[in-house]
Amino acid sequence: MKTQSKKRLVIVGGGFGGLSVAHYIDKSLWDVVLVDRNNYHSFPPLFYQVASSGLEASSISFPFRRELRGRHYKGVSFHFGDVKKIDTVKKTVETQFETLHYDAVVLAAGTTNNFFGIPDLEKHVFTLKSTAEAIRCRNEVLARLERAALCRDDSLRRRLLTFVVVGGGPTGVEIAGALGELKRFVLKREYPSIDPDEMRVVLVEGNSRLLGAMSERSGADALKALEQLMVEVQLGKTMKNYVDKVLSFADGSIIETETVVWTAGITGVPLPIEGTDVRPVHAGRWDVDAFNAVKGIPDLYAIGDIALQQAEGYPKGLPQVAPVAMQQAKTLARNLSKETREPFKYHDKGSMATVGRNRAVVDIGKLHLNGRVAWLAWMGVHLMSLLGMRNRTVVFINWVWGYFNFSSGLRLMLRPDRYPLRSYWNE
Amino acid sequence: MKTQSKKRLVIVGGGFGGLSVAHYIDKSLWDVVLVDRNNYHSFPPLFYQVASSGLEASSISFPFRRELRGRHYKGVSFHFGDVKKIDTVKKTVETQFETLHYDAVVLAAGTTNNFFGIPDLEKHVFTLKSTAEAIRCRNEVLARLERAALCRDDSLRRRLLTFVVVGGGPTGVEIAGALGELKRFVLKREYPSIDPDEMRVVLVEGNSRLLGAMSERSGADALKALEQLMVEVQLGKTMKNYVDKVLSFADGSIIETETVVWTAGITGVPLPIEGTDVRPVHAGRWDVDAFNAVKGIPDLYAIGDIALQQAEGYPKGLPQVAPVAMQQAKTLARNLSKETREPFKYHDKGSMATVGRNRAVVDIGKLHLNGRVAWLAWMGVHLMSLLGMRNRTVVFINWVWGYFNFSSGLRLMLRPDRYPLRSYWNE
Repeated sequence: MKTQSKKRLVIVGGGFGGLSVAHYIDKSLWDVVLVDRNNYHSFPPLFYQVASSGLEASSISFPFRRELRGRHYKGVSFHFGDVKKIDTVKKTVETQFETLHYDAVVLAAGTTNNFFGIPDLEKHVFTLKSTAEAIRCRNEVLARLERAALCRDDSLRRRLLTFVVVGGGPTGVEIAGALGELKRFVLKREYPSIDPDEMRVVLVEGNSRLLGAMSERSGADALKALEQLMVEVQLGKTMKNYVDKVLSFADGSIIETETVVWTAGITGVPLPIEGTDVRPVHAGRWDVDAFNAVKGIPDLYAIGDIALQQAEGYPKGLPQVAPVAMQQAKTLARNLSKETREPFKYHDKGSMATVGRNRAVVDIGKLHLNGRVAWLAWMGVHLMSLLGMRNRTVVFINWVWGYFNFSSGLRLMLRPDRYPLRSYWNE
Repeated sequence: MKTQSKKRLVIVGGGFGGLSVAHYIDKSLWDVVLVDRNNYHSFPPLFYQVASSGLEASSISFPFRRELRGRHYKGVSFHFGDVKKIDTVKKTVETQFETLHYDAVVLAAGTTNNFFGIPDLEKHVFTLKSTAEAIRCRNEVLARLERAALCRDDSLRRRLLTFVVVGGGPTGVEIAGALGELKRFVLKREYPSIDPDEMRVVLVEGNSRLLGAMSERSGADALKALEQLMVEVQLGKTMKNYVDKVLSFADGSIIETETVVWTAGITGVPLPIEGTDVRPVHAGRWDVDAFNAVKGIPDLYAIGDIALQQAEGYPKGLPQVAPVAMQQAKTLARNLSKETREPFKYHDKGSMATVGRNRAVVDIGKLHLNGRVAWLAWMGVHLMSLLGMRNRTVVFINWVWGYFNFSSGLRLMLRPDRYPLRSYWNE
């Protein structure tokens, strides 16, 4: 049988990169197994919209099994599981359910939050690195507004209505903008017992500008747009810790708040790789060569945010953005499907961030867009990148509705956390 | 000031009944406070569709604050909270956040699961009496399929693929039908490593027929429709207990299963009412007179599923369905708004249940419908009863999509339970 001569490729993680490898690789040569700890592909660029009640999580999630029914994926199977160990000597990937032999493995597990060792920070802040975290953030923000609406203790009320976002990258800017819209447009209509002036949204960034990875102009435009939404932006301010509802900074200042949204650091998802001394080189990222092979470990590849690849013009490595992951995936899939290999070359198609409706910034080479045209471009690119027509349609409807009434229909404190999954195979 | 002479009405629960009272009562006479433990109105008739991945929870939930912006609700305020105590002497309603004085209070909190004292049953079965429970049920069903897809232990695999629904009322019939569709139409396309014949769906009912509250013909049609979906229906079978994955029955038979969906009993939501000896008369329901006043407690009213109201032709009290709650609410609101009172009179507009696509049953007086026409009627009635145009549109899109591809885009094991709400005001 031909199938028995096929080699097995295990892909760890079904994000933009992992799915693209599965899509482009030659399935007549490879038996492909996609392993993920969720049963769905998710769309991190829009997590902040889930957190701010603009979209429902299901609209930016797509089940792997549905996607893999497509003809491009014939020969790819989905295996649900958390990778507990990769043994580079035995060449196996272990999850809580099974041990899979591999001929090659692609790490495409992306990143998670980095708390830089600040003690207990993880327990007290809210984060946006997964769908579940975004839903939690939404529920917690709504819970604070409900609590404040009934609160007569001045100091608690002030803490409840102070929202601090730490980190001035795209996610930080986007969630701060969404909170600003809540303050400016929603409170008055829906929370009559809260004066909008009582709500305070603060964005704190350690550098002297916002959106450090984009152009100076984009950073300045984002700052202006946030100020229009009455977000207080504090630049050049380094956070020290957050203890007993007090957020303190290196300059000695403090902010009392019940809500800190942490977007200030990411690190590669930890994967226990055994049988080698090779370790991630920086912030959980694996050093890869021009072919995305992890240096020093045979048959192990890494792509996307979990990889660190040097390239001309990128002394610190290629940026951790979806287009890099998808382009690396395509090149890697082709290299694994042919006798000859070509080194990866990144084509930068530009970058974008949004602050609120009619407010976005786009850099394409030297070209800079802002305001409504940038915002429409941002929406178009994100709509088209979603998997599934149903999702695109539902997101489009939500955005159109949201444009007129700020998506108030989605400010739901849905609480499945009241009923934790009972399966004994929980992590 | 006029407002100071207004009396205060506290409504406990914002379901069909509670919202209708708030809608119809004269707000120039009453200062109305709506208290609910969720920040949204939910739509119990479609919980089973959330549980079976047909709809997203947000599509059948609607935020109170959004709804209360409508002109009919001017003068109604929403207070988030769990009612911890109602003191009928001091005339106060206490939640974890506040104590509200009332001149009149309406109990409209509905029902929750009744486990009839079977020890630990609550901990091992899945239920469908709230949005959060429905999401849990969805996640657990999907988790079992994922686990089975990788399972090589025959006996575990069999248990994982055996789904038992206990209770042959509308909810039981509906969820069993949805599981039957999963077996019949979805497994083959999306779970190549599971043979559809391996999956077993069993519906168990203690009585000798299904849908006891509907016509004989509806019960028989529902049975036929379920059999077409390869659901094993076991009638006249009384469940004893469910211990160590073994479901046992009064007749000595057993079924080994990892999944029991319990739809066999409801009871009024427990509300601690103090200062009186009056207690609920049956299954948590409060005995009310023809004006929905709770007998023996002044200024306390009860409507909907939590009330037990005798009426001609209903020796056991009016049925626990949405139309009763809404009609009682309207009459009560008018009675509280006028000098004269009229007794409640129920207008039965019929009842319906659905088994799967093109399969439903409808009773309207002597008229009986089944098959596709009943199914279209069922969809129309439920679409129109949803709050909010966005929800109606999104549900409609999901149903159209689902008709062609069985809504596979929503089979998401979204896991906010990984991140329980941290607020100190949790229950």
